[in-house]
Amino acid sequence: MDFSSLSKTVMKEIGAVSRLFWKNSLKQGQAPGALVHVGERLQQQPRITVFDYTEDTVDENTVADAEACFAYRDTESVTWINVDGVHDTDLVEKLGTHFGLHPLVMEDIVNTGQRPKAENYGDYIYLVFKMLRFDPTRQTVMSEQVSLILGKNIVLSFQEQQGDVFNPLRDRIRQGVGRVRRCGADYLAYGLADAIIDGYFSLLETMGEIIETLDAAVMTDPSPQTPQVLQHLRTEAMVLRKAVWPLRESVGELRQMETPLMTKMLVPYLADLYDHAVHVADSAETLRELIASLRDTYLTTISNRTNEVMKVLTILATIFIPLTFVAGIYGMNFEIMPELKWRYGYAYALGLMLLIACGMVVYFRRKRWL
Amino acid sequence: MDFSSLSKTVMKEIGAVSRLFWKNSLKQGQAPGALVHVGERLQQQPRITVFDYTEDTVDENTVADAEACFAYRDTESVTWINVDGVHDTDLVEKLGTHFGLHPLVMEDIVNTGQRPKAENYGDYIYLVFKMLRFDPTRQTVMSEQVSLILGKNIVLSFQEQQGDVFNPLRDRIRQGVGRVRRCGADYLAYGLADAIIDGYFSLLETMGEIIETLDAAVMTDPSPQTPQVLQHLRTEAMVLRKAVWPLRESVGELRQMETPLMTKMLVPYLADLYDHAVHVADSAETLRELIASLRDTYLTTISNRTNEVMKVLTILATIFIPLTFVAGIYGMNFEIMPELKWRYGYAYALGLMLLIACGMVVYFRRKRWL
Amino acid sequence: MDFSSLSKTVMKEIGAVSRLFWKNSLKQGQAPGALVHVGERLQQQPRITVFDYTEDTVDENTVADAEACFAYRDTESVTWINVDGVHDTDLVEKLGTHFGLHPLVMEDIVNTGQRPKAENYGDYIYLVFKMLRFDPTRQTVMSEQVSLILGKNIVLSFQEQQGDVFNPLRDRIRQGVGRVRRCGADYLAYGLADAIIDGYFSLLETMGEIIETLDAAVMTDPSPQTPQVLQHLRTEAMVLRKAVWPLRESVGELRQMETPLMTKMLVPYLADLYDHAVHVADSAETLRELIASLRDTYLTTISNRTNEVMKVLTILATIFIPLTFVAGIYGMNFEIMPELKWRYGYAYALGLMLLIACGMVVYFRRKRWL
Amino acid sequence: MDFSSLSKTVMKEIGAVSRLFWKNSLKQGQAPGALVHVGERLQQQPRITVFDYTEDTVDENTVADAEACFAYRDTESVTWINVDGVHDTDLVEKLGTHFGLHPLVMEDIVNTGQRPKAENYGDYIYLVFKMLRFDPTRQTVMSEQVSLILGKNIVLSFQEQQGDVFNPLRDRIRQGVGRVRRCGADYLAYGLADAIIDGYFSLLETMGEIIETLDAAVMTDPSPQTPQVLQHLRTEAMVLRKAVWPLRESVGELRQMETPLMTKMLVPYLADLYDHAVHVADSAETLRELIASLRDTYLTTISNRTNEVMKVLTILATIFIPLTFVAGIYGMNFEIMPELKWRYGYAYALGLMLLIACGMVVYFRRKRWL
Amino acid sequence: MDFSSLSKTVMKEIGAVSRLFWKNSLKQGQAPGALVHVGERLQQQPRITVFDYTEDTVDENTVADAEACFAYRDTESVTWINVDGVHDTDLVEKLGTHFGLHPLVMEDIVNTGQRPKAENYGDYIYLVFKMLRFDPTRQTVMSEQVSLILGKNIVLSFQEQQGDVFNPLRDRIRQGVGRVRRCGADYLAYGLADAIIDGYFSLLETMGEIIETLDAAVMTDPSPQTPQVLQHLRTEAMVLRKAVWPLRESVGELRQMETPLMTKMLVPYLADLYDHAVHVADSAETLRELIASLRDTYLTTISNRTNEVMKVLTILATIFIPLTFVAGIYGMNFEIMPELKWRYGYAYALGLMLLIACGMVVYFRRKRWL
Repeated sequence: MDFSSLSKTVMKEIGAVSRLFWKNSLKQGQAPGALVHVGERLQQQPRITVFDYTEDTVDENTVADAEACFAYRDTESVTWINVDGVHDTDLVEKLGTHFGLHPLVMEDIVNTGQRPKAENYGDYIYLVFKMLRFDPTRQTVMSEQVSLILGKNIVLSFQEQQGDVFNPLRDRIRQGVGRVRRCGADYLAYGLADAIIDGYFSLLETMGEIIETLDAAVMTDPSPQTPQVLQHLRTEAMVLRKAVWPLRESVGELRQMETPLMTKMLVPYLADLYDHAVHVADSAETLRELIASLRDTYLTTISNRTNEVMKVLTILATIFIPLTFVAGIYGMNFEIMPELKWRYGYAYALGLMLLIACGMVVYFRRKRWL
Repeated sequence: MDFSSLSKTVMKEIGAVSRLFWKNSLKQGQAPGALVHVGERLQQQPRITVFDYTEDTVDENTVADAEACFAYRDTESVTWINVDGVHDTDLVEKLGTHFGLHPLVMEDIVNTGQRPKAENYGDYIYLVFKMLRFDPTRQTVMSEQVSLILGKNIVLSFQEQQGDVFNPLRDRIRQGVGRVRRCGADYLAYGLADAIIDGYFSLLETMGEIIETLDAAVMTDPSPQTPQVLQHLRTEAMVLRKAVWPLRESVGELRQMETPLMTKMLVPYLADLYDHAVHVADSAETLRELIASLRDTYLTTISNRTNEVMKVLTILATIFIPLTFVAGIYGMNFEIMPELKWRYGYAYALGLMLLIACGMVVYFRRKRWL
Repeated sequence: MDFSSLSKTVMKEIGAVSRLFWKNSLKQGQAPGALVHVGERLQQQPRITVFDYTEDTVDENTVADAEACFAYRDTESVTWINVDGVHDTDLVEKLGTHFGLHPLVMEDIVNTGQRPKAENYGDYIYLVFKMLRFDPTRQTVMSEQVSLILGKNIVLSFQEQQGDVFNPLRDRIRQGVGRVRRCGADYLAYGLADAIIDGYFSLLETMGEIIETLDAAVMTDPSPQTPQVLQHLRTEAMVLRKAVWPLRESVGELRQMETPLMTKMLVPYLADLYDHAVHVADSAETLRELIASLRDTYLTTISNRTNEVMKVLTILATIFIPLTFVAGIYGMNFEIMPELKWRYGYAYALGLMLLIACGMVVYFRRKRWL
Repeated sequence: MDFSSLSKTVMKEIGAVSRLFWKNSLKQGQAPGALVHVGERLQQQPRITVFDYTEDTVDENTVADAEACFAYRDTESVTWINVDGVHDTDLVEKLGTHFGLHPLVMEDIVNTGQRPKAENYGDYIYLVFKMLRFDPTRQTVMSEQVSLILGKNIVLSFQEQQGDVFNPLRDRIRQGVGRVRRCGADYLAYGLADAIIDGYFSLLETMGEIIETLDAAVMTDPSPQTPQVLQHLRTEAMVLRKAVWPLRESVGELRQMETPLMTKMLVPYLADLYDHAVHVADSAETLRELIASLRDTYLTTISNRTNEVMKVLTILATIFIPLTFVAGIYGMNFEIMPELKWRYGYAYALGLMLLIACGMVVYFRRKRWL
Repeated sequence: MDFSSLSKTVMKEIGAVSRLFWKNSLKQGQAPGALVHVGERLQQQPRITVFDYTEDTVDENTVADAEACFAYRDTESVTWINVDGVHDTDLVEKLGTHFGLHPLVMEDIVNTGQRPKAENYGDYIYLVFKMLRFDPTRQTVMSEQVSLILGKNIVLSFQEQQGDVFNPLRDRIRQGVGRVRRCGADYLAYGLADAIIDGYFSLLETMGEIIETLDAAVMTDPSPQTPQVLQHLRTEAMVLRKAVWPLRESVGELRQMETPLMTKMLVPYLADLYDHAVHVADSAETLRELIASLRDTYLTTISNRTNEVMKVLTILATIFIPLTFVAGIYGMNFEIMPELKWRYGYAYALGLMLLIACGMVVYFRRKRWL
């Protein structure tokens, strides 16, 4: 575990605030529905990929601009248009306008500071998720906003940058594995949501393993860096919880929507999705408890250790204090001090000291301090 | 960050109590509906500004008195009457009576100790918000009560003093940017509420940045002032939370109101507003957790530091105690002490001391205290 | 602030238990509905005052016994019968029987250990409140149970002792100020409830001010008495919370009651009352947080202080330990110790000591312990 | 208060576990509805007492066996059959079968590990309560399960052992005091439940008084036994809370049951019962807070005390360290030490020491450590 | 109690993470409904046992493969097919397909990372439970997923490995004890669920007893290993809570399902099951509180002990410091020190020391530090 050896500079590079508060201040003063990209610009050029399939055919394309997608609107085949790079507000606006999206939806797509939610606009359903992954270099949770639009025979998905958790799903479409080719756009949208939520579980496991490693380390050899690592983990757990907590509500709402866009066949799948959402929210809570518990153990271990050191040292010191006092007495320069003249005076003094030392040790033993 | 260098006097100037309990004691004993201004008198003269617009025309005026607004009641154009300075109870009463406000509404407008709420009076809807801004000089959250009345083709807004977050909206009205000129009074009221809630986000970010700065400082160099700053931040977070917490409920109620005053077109906008209210309430909670987490880290760091100091010093002391004891022994004045006559007695004593010192160091090393 | 100088005896006089658990043990074994006064007997003689008014006339009387009130039952004018001193169970029984109260209601009136509640008995509504005031001598929150009966054209109120928060309302009735004379018994009952809840706000402010004073004191000069004062404040806050917490629910129930006893005109007033109840409950929670926060600050300040003392002293001690050791060496009585014969031996020893002392100081400085 | 002098052996005799987890392991592997007594066997012989009454007549009997009760099933008079000692499963089975109880009800009667609950079986209502009393010898809360069956004109009650809180009710039946003789079996069942809940209040008061005594003791003279007593109290409060917490729900359910077994006349009585259940649950929470608050005060007091001791002692030690160093210097045996020859060398040394001591005291004073 | 002597290696063998997060990462990227075994493979060969019974006949078999069970689908007799070993996905798929299970149900059966839940699929009900047992060797809670399918006249149960809590139920079926043979498949499914939940109670008791033993140990002789044992217990309690917490909801849903698969006769049994689920969830919470309380006591005891040691030792040291100082004075080598020449100088010095020592002791006594 190279966690504790992380240089602090790297940790700070992506501060907690931008990930926890989802900066919105740029938007301030803009008209509602105005398209202003909020968030980091994570790649240069937006990329549009289109899947168009029926049970028997698949057509996969990377298209150059928004207009190239327009033809897919009224087809009977299922179409999935995926956009990587929402900072291109023009592109989003063109696509959105063509597919009839509400200005507020377009605003939310380009403003990456949304909470996960599910909204029914009648002709389409709008879903927001946070796609999370653990960056092993920086040991931080990276968050990316994914917007899904489920329309009639069409799914639009918007991501902040390339690279996502959908590749296995893409392969299943290409190869016709599983139900996806036989089902409609609703099942595709479910598949995308399911892939995102499945990703949370592997994140949870990664963080759980870090905690388990730390747990062993804290008990045997707590280091002064441990509080910082714990503090860092706590922030990461907060980032996770913020993405995961509203899911229960939003998937619940999705499940209860009355809409012709979702067929009856989807019901058990949505129930399963809801179950996963609840599960992941519970696990995020468990993570939090594990971190709190780790912190308690750290504090107790540290305190036990220091107490042990202090106790042994204090006992040592206390044994020598009376001895030094005896030596001090016979170091006095009084002219008449009978003991000084005794033949075995020195031996007597040493014996006296030994006696005192043994007495102290016995006393400490009896008091169970040794 | 000049936060920690804030003189305490300035901090105390605006005590937490007046901002957290929203003083109401003046009202005690008054008849319900009696107009008594409660709160600080923040400016000399009230100021009334009027916007009157249709899709094609805009008319902006600063009027002298309440009577000048009376004519706007029955027009078809949308009118926004904004009053800065609610301490002028006469003015509020005149306006309120003319526009048919309930005495309790007028009382709540002049009494700035209200919780955010939304109330449906049939002919009009009454909304209360707390407009917050971060005062960088005093490093405190300043709160101002804004009352909105949404009537037929009219919006009345009452603030405690001049200066607000509505200027971008004013510009949009003047220039006809966005939807505001094409929509009715309900959209205007929504725009005002949205501007206030957007303001919370930038406040949250400011406070988040303060915490991030403190966070770095606490780990590398915790100062004795840190607890005071934390205590101060905690109070500010409470001020924020008090304004923000009831929002979820009040915007939720607004959303569910059955009233002809709000058109169907507003539904997605209110959903968006609700979403923001939930988001901001969540973020206030996150802020609280960050502060608590910071406090934990501070305490752990301080405790680690002191332990380190104590430990090293105690070890040092303990090594010297037996050495001083040996010196004490050979400082005794017994007449017969063979070692004293030895030729290499002195060297032997020094050697003995060295031996003891080395033994202690080895022992401490093995116990991992060094 | 003479809070911390309060003698402890005074504080204990009115124990927390009697105010927090509202002693009920006397009632044990009694039949439900049996009239047993539970609570302190706070005054000698019960006192009955009667207001009887219409829009045009007011009649105010202090009557001698229950029978004198009987005539007010069937009048068209609004009657308010106020009884100070519920320990006189005979009086309560006579009144209650005449006005048709249920035995359980009469039991609850004389048993002052009730939670605030609102109950609809069809012919009348029964309300229980806790009237609180801050006793500045004992620095404690004093609680008194007020029972209100709202019947047709009549309000009965029962208090434990003379002295209440209703005088401004009495004045408004006498002088015909405000709506009260023009409205019915329902508005009167609302006015009484409103006066009680308004009283909570001034109590909250008083306690908030105590906390603010303490807050300043804790940071600059924490005294060993502070924990006791905090513990006391915490108990007072619990007394307050116990009175205030059930209000939200009981006023909410009152608001939803379907009864001919309350006219439609009362609806906004009850909404306002509910709003105040919520507000006061929130503020009680804020108070609790402020006290907890104060306690944290106290502990941190104390711990910082002690650490500072210990640290400086330990450093001082540690510097002198090696010096004393050097002195001890040259105090040894070996016959052959070359340094002792040196001409500048003494100066050398002093120099050595100075060197060691400086070395230690430099080391501490570098470690940032000084 | 002889609480803290309690020998620990006595405390441990009745462990927390058996009272908090309500042992159920005996039941494991048994068929649902199998009658296995779970709990301690608290008395030798079960005892059956029967009250049979109308408004005019009372008949009170102690009967020998279950069969003697069979005749009471179809009478018009109200019958109360009370069984002390549920370990006799045969007896419970005979009675239960005759009166038509469901096997699960019979199982719950003999298995004393039930949570308080209210269940409607159509022909009868089944209620479970925990009857608590404070055992002053062991200073513990003793819990006994009471099962009530309310059938047509009949109430069956099952207790674990003789001795209960129903004697005042028995007297009222015998003497015809109050409503009980004039009302039906439903009022009788209410009366029993009311007596049990009233018992909680006196338990709460007893525990509140123990806390108040401890509170005074903790501030003036905290003893090392205090944590143990607090830990013990905490467990007792948990026992209480476990009995009291589900009451709110179960009495609430009882109140909402639609059943011909309860007449309309009972409505306000059930409302009152519910009110008491809520009150007692709140008070249990208050108790918990008081104990937590006491623990905080204890820790703060202890910590304050130790700090005070350490501080004074450390200061004392520190003053003497430089003095001893000075003495050490002039105890060195250098041949050439001018001061030693001075006429007033000794006085000078003593003076120097005095100077240093005063200097230290002044410094400590100025730093406010003395 | 051999708890604290547990070697840490054993403890770590089964890490908290795998039991708390129910690893799901293998599933990532798989199509929903794909059968991938997630969890440890706990035994070599799956084992299928079949019970087929009517009121009069019982037929018990261990069958070789899935096909051997197919004939039981359409019989009138009640059939219970139990599969030990869900890692054989082929077997599960064959059975599932034959009995018409939804792919998602089959996926959940082989993926042992499910939360307890109850789902109604129309033709059958799907239940998931966690069967827990306490492994006394490792002192850990072992969790095994049990899936139940209740169809028409059939119950399928899937476990991870052989060995369960159903043997008493099996005996009752074989011997015709209790209701099970007379009732349908719904009662059988209830019996299985009841057996699992009953198992939780004995686990709770075991953990309660460990806590009680620790509790006694912590007060009399806290060891440095205690925090580790507490940390371990805390994790075990979390494992328990995770299995138990969702039960309340899932059994509640089961109870409210409208399905012809469950007869009306089951209603009180489901109520009882729900009651047990609530009870066990409450008890898990109690366990958590007991552990927290134990931790508090441990910390307080440790802190009290260390304080006691430090205090006594510091007092001892402080008494000797002035004495050593006096000895140091008379060890100075000034030529003119009158006391040194005194006849009783030595006795005077010793007397002075005695005086100082007594004075200190008296002072400490008066300050109540001794």
